[in-house]
Amino acid sequence: MSDRPVQRRPGGRTARNRESVLRATADLLLSEGYDQLTIARVAAAAQVAETTVYRRWRTKAHLAADALSELARDENPIPDTGTLEGDLRALLTQVIALVERPEVKRVILTVVSLAAEDSDVVRAKDAFWETRFAGAAALVKRAVERGELPTGADPYELIEDLAAPVYFRLLVTGRPLDGRLVDRAVGLALSRQGIRATSEPERRASPSVDR
Amino acid sequence: MSDRPVQRRPGGRTARNRESVLRATADLLLSEGYDQLTIARVAAAAQVAETTVYRRWRTKAHLAADALSELARDENPIPDTGTLEGDLRALLTQVIALVERPEVKRVILTVVSLAAEDSDVVRAKDAFWETRFAGAAALVKRAVERGELPTGADPYELIEDLAAPVYFRLLVTGRPLDGRLVDRAVGLALSRQGIRATSEPERRASPSVDR
Repeated sequence: MSDRPVQRRPGGRTARNRESVLRATADLLLSEGYDQLTIARVAAAAQVAETTVYRRWRTKAHLAADALSELARDENPIPDTGTLEGDLRALLTQVIALVERPEVKRVILTVVSLAAEDSDVVRAKDAFWETRFAGAAALVKRAVERGELPTGADPYELIEDLAAPVYFRLLVTGRPLDGRLVDRAVGLALSRQGIRATSEPERRASPSVDR
Repeated sequence: MSDRPVQRRPGGRTARNRESVLRATADLLLSEGYDQLTIARVAAAAQVAETTVYRRWRTKAHLAADALSELARDENPIPDTGTLEGDLRALLTQVIALVERPEVKRVILTVVSLAAEDSDVVRAKDAFWETRFAGAAALVKRAVERGELPTGADPYELIEDLAAPVYFRLLVTGRPLDGRLVDRAVGLALSRQGIRATSEPERRASPSVDR
């Protein structure tokens, strides 16, 4: 074996280590919370050397952000249903299912409160959202190609319109994240783009159902 | 003097005590944060007996919620500009000015993180938002009377549409709360009600300015 640094190859040892570390991080985060997360515990759980973790992730905030990005990618993949409305509805339904899990909600609340004072957390949070918005850009691109959105439609604005009411209820008012909210948020995001939701022929006409 | 409980009279001693206690609470909350708030410290600062505080506020969470309601009422009164769009724009501009104050933001973050585990905080937070939404109901009522909104328009939905993007940025993505956001959020809340913002003849046509 050579002494050169290990090259990153898909399916190689580096990739396997990365996967183990991120899985161990997500497990620890969700079971014990961000406060209890340490790189030493992650390394032990993933059966790798601590230096292996530090080589790739400078701080536990960055490690946590990457682990949460993986979790979001796995459990909330960017949908491709064939219509913008279908995609937004599927995306938001998945987001709600994810953030309502008590252990996920706890991590979100911790990150929110830490972001006030810890610049590593702020940077890690920014990186997490960049990844998510990059995923949403693919969804918007498909809608532009289908002629549903004008060229230059802004993925950030669309996702903000869609997700903001969910986080407002989750973090601020505590109102329920129900199917009615999905209808409203999808309708709001679409109406902002000049599109009327097909599933909302009569706004407020009927109580919502989960789809 | 009689031994009967003191009646609440506007301008009487009870009202003055209430005002002193709430002002002392707000001062302590903003200067030292929720964790440092105790009823003993509030009573000392307001120069009243601790029992005077406990008689009206069962827990420090309720006391803090009332103090924040007063603060919001004073610094973010429900506007009456003569048009729905003017009212929403004024309201949101005030909200942003308030939540961007570092000491206010810190209190909001603390309340968000505590609400996960402390049912007193949850109840107090609910009471705070009920008060705010009741204020917004007056704004909606006037818009209905002017024929700008249909009878039965829901104040909660309108305020959620308006405020959700602000809290999403403040608590989640960290994007700036600028004049462009005010334009977008007001436009979003109005478009959801079937109204086009007069200040937005060409959506996205020009960079925003603070008004």
